[in-house]
Amino acid sequence: MNDPLKKIKPAVRAISAYTLPPYRASIKINQNENPFDMPHEIKAEVARRLATRAWSRYPEFVPAKLLERLASFAGWKPEGALAGNGSNELIQAVLTVTVSQGTRVAIPQPTFTLYRQIVTVLGGEVIAVPLTDTFRFDVDAIRQAAKDADVVIICSPNNPTGCLIDEADVARIADDFDGILVIDEAYHEFSGRTVARLLDRLPNLIVLRTFSKAMAMAGLRVGYMLSSPEITREVHKATLPYNLNFHSATAAETACEMFDLLRPKIEMIISERERLAGLLSSISNVEVFQSAANFLLIRTPMQAQDLFEELHKQDILVRDVSKYPMLARCVRVSVGAPEENDRLAEALSNSVTSLKN
Amino acid sequence: MNDPLKKIKPAVRAISAYTLPPYRASIKINQNENPFDMPHEIKAEVARRLATRAWSRYPEFVPAKLLERLASFAGWKPEGALAGNGSNELIQAVLTVTVSQGTRVAIPQPTFTLYRQIVTVLGGEVIAVPLTDTFRFDVDAIRQAAKDADVVIICSPNNPTGCLIDEADVARIADDFDGILVIDEAYHEFSGRTVARLLDRLPNLIVLRTFSKAMAMAGLRVGYMLSSPEITREVHKATLPYNLNFHSATAAETACEMFDLLRPKIEMIISERERLAGLLSSISNVEVFQSAANFLLIRTPMQAQDLFEELHKQDILVRDVSKYPMLARCVRVSVGAPEENDRLAEALSNSVTSLKN
Repeated sequence: MNDPLKKIKPAVRAISAYTLPPYRASIKINQNENPFDMPHEIKAEVARRLATRAWSRYPEFVPAKLLERLASFAGWKPEGALAGNGSNELIQAVLTVTVSQGTRVAIPQPTFTLYRQIVTVLGGEVIAVPLTDTFRFDVDAIRQAAKDADVVIICSPNNPTGCLIDEADVARIADDFDGILVIDEAYHEFSGRTVARLLDRLPNLIVLRTFSKAMAMAGLRVGYMLSSPEITREVHKATLPYNLNFHSATAAETACEMFDLLRPKIEMIISERERLAGLLSSISNVEVFQSAANFLLIRTPMQAQDLFEELHKQDILVRDVSKYPMLARCVRVSVGAPEENDRLAEALSNSVTSLKN
Repeated sequence: MNDPLKKIKPAVRAISAYTLPPYRASIKINQNENPFDMPHEIKAEVARRLATRAWSRYPEFVPAKLLERLASFAGWKPEGALAGNGSNELIQAVLTVTVSQGTRVAIPQPTFTLYRQIVTVLGGEVIAVPLTDTFRFDVDAIRQAAKDADVVIICSPNNPTGCLIDEADVARIADDFDGILVIDEAYHEFSGRTVARLLDRLPNLIVLRTFSKAMAMAGLRVGYMLSSPEITREVHKATLPYNLNFHSATAAETACEMFDLLRPKIEMIISERERLAGLLSSISNVEVFQSAANFLLIRTPMQAQDLFEELHKQDILVRDVSKYPMLARCVRVSVGAPEENDRLAEALSNSVTSLKN
């Protein structure tokens, strides 16, 4: 028998299969999910809208009503909006239409790992731009790197550090850059900031958004993109026909229309973030970094894997991010419900207190 | 201002943006959807299973229960099963891991157009293998083309012609081929046939399936792939994390478990296909091609666009496939509910009778 893998590209075979160990815990603060779930009034309205829709029929070829809602929600035009099966699909589509062998993509590091993975699979080259020692964006270094780059991708607020880039700095980067500038605003609702106002004067700006965090819909997989109509048309070519199922599309539409019910939850997450940062900072040996997102990056003297295990024993699941560049001994914790945050502070205190050093 | 499209790949800019004219009609037989919708008992069971699931939480990283259900449903092993956001995503993933500049992909023509589009975007080269004059697979020509190919893709039953390839012929093609052999079985339930039994002895065989046709779930976007565990692991690398939302995954699981409720609808579609083929064949000037799927390819003396418009005036939406190779003056009609099929026969008779020639 021939080797069945003979025709698989070497670059693909070289990638180690992505697996996630099946850890479970009552307090799940490892994926930056919204701890409050979708308000039941919105769920009920979605169910009402779906009741008469046949499952057997394809979604609309262009989800016009959803794009109008998204555009209006974001203060932009529908012909500059695109919806995807999670923002992951849109990240992939943006890179598919821009990156081929030798394309240079400047990316601050550490950040969301998917950018680098996809750039690499497409044969592009990553220009890594380290954050500062205190994990802030190094805007001058980004501007410098942009000179040699075709695409710049900035996650702001940045996962997993929480740092934010100012609108004025984005404008400065854009002003002497003729490539594609992508700002991934997956966590923007927790920062109260957006660069979407720049879309009007920057036709090479792409803003990515998601319903997985503040919008409490990680399980339904909806992301969206805002850009000039020209860029949007090109990126659209790289998404698959019927990429968004009708249930998720309807849920996203409804969530935009009934956003007033989600807003108080987001405000609570923001205030809990500040309270949690205070609680954790007061624990000796715990360093907490300023965050504009719904998570905190913390550093302790412990090995991150050991801390992960200690917390897991106390029924708390966090994200070990110590394998990221610069993040030795760091873990990322999502902001949970108030009682979850209290439990985390207590458990972390227990773990760090039990240190031998 | 710089040209914002400067950094978009020329190959992408060359693709014309895919648009679908927004035609509507009461009888929608243009997308090979199941006319009977999902049985309400299955919808109710899905709703019951979803009631306690938080929308805000990500799907499982690997949908283990769904993969077990799919494997058991198809008579294969879970580690050789992969689920996607529609089979479109899996077609893309299979081609992403196999096709780069210069890869040769043999594809019978005419067939589902997505294969060629994706191969082209990835820089591969299509070796087109024409069907016979009566729109059957030319197995000898496929075997010949396979000698120069890295990948062979056969849609069986074939969209839009309805022809089927025998298991024995697939085995013959595979036996002297050391590349990847993909059989897209999107319509297999309507043929009562599958080549899945060959998986056990052909580790380079990939079988694609969908929930969009017989399974009455086009609106929910679920596809799956069956192959050797080795191939499955590689293709998995090209799917995005969390590609399948929890609602669609749960619906697919439930549909497999309660398939006995779907089976009678499928049987009715098969018998309606035969009845409709008889009705249409009896209309003078209408040629009907034998189909093992839930649609029929027909040819009349009219220009397909004119026939499309004539039928649309009679509130019936069909698919004009006359732009496909070999299919001048052809349209494709999905098998609908009995009364829809009667209406189609009547409308087609009206249209063809009104011919001037």
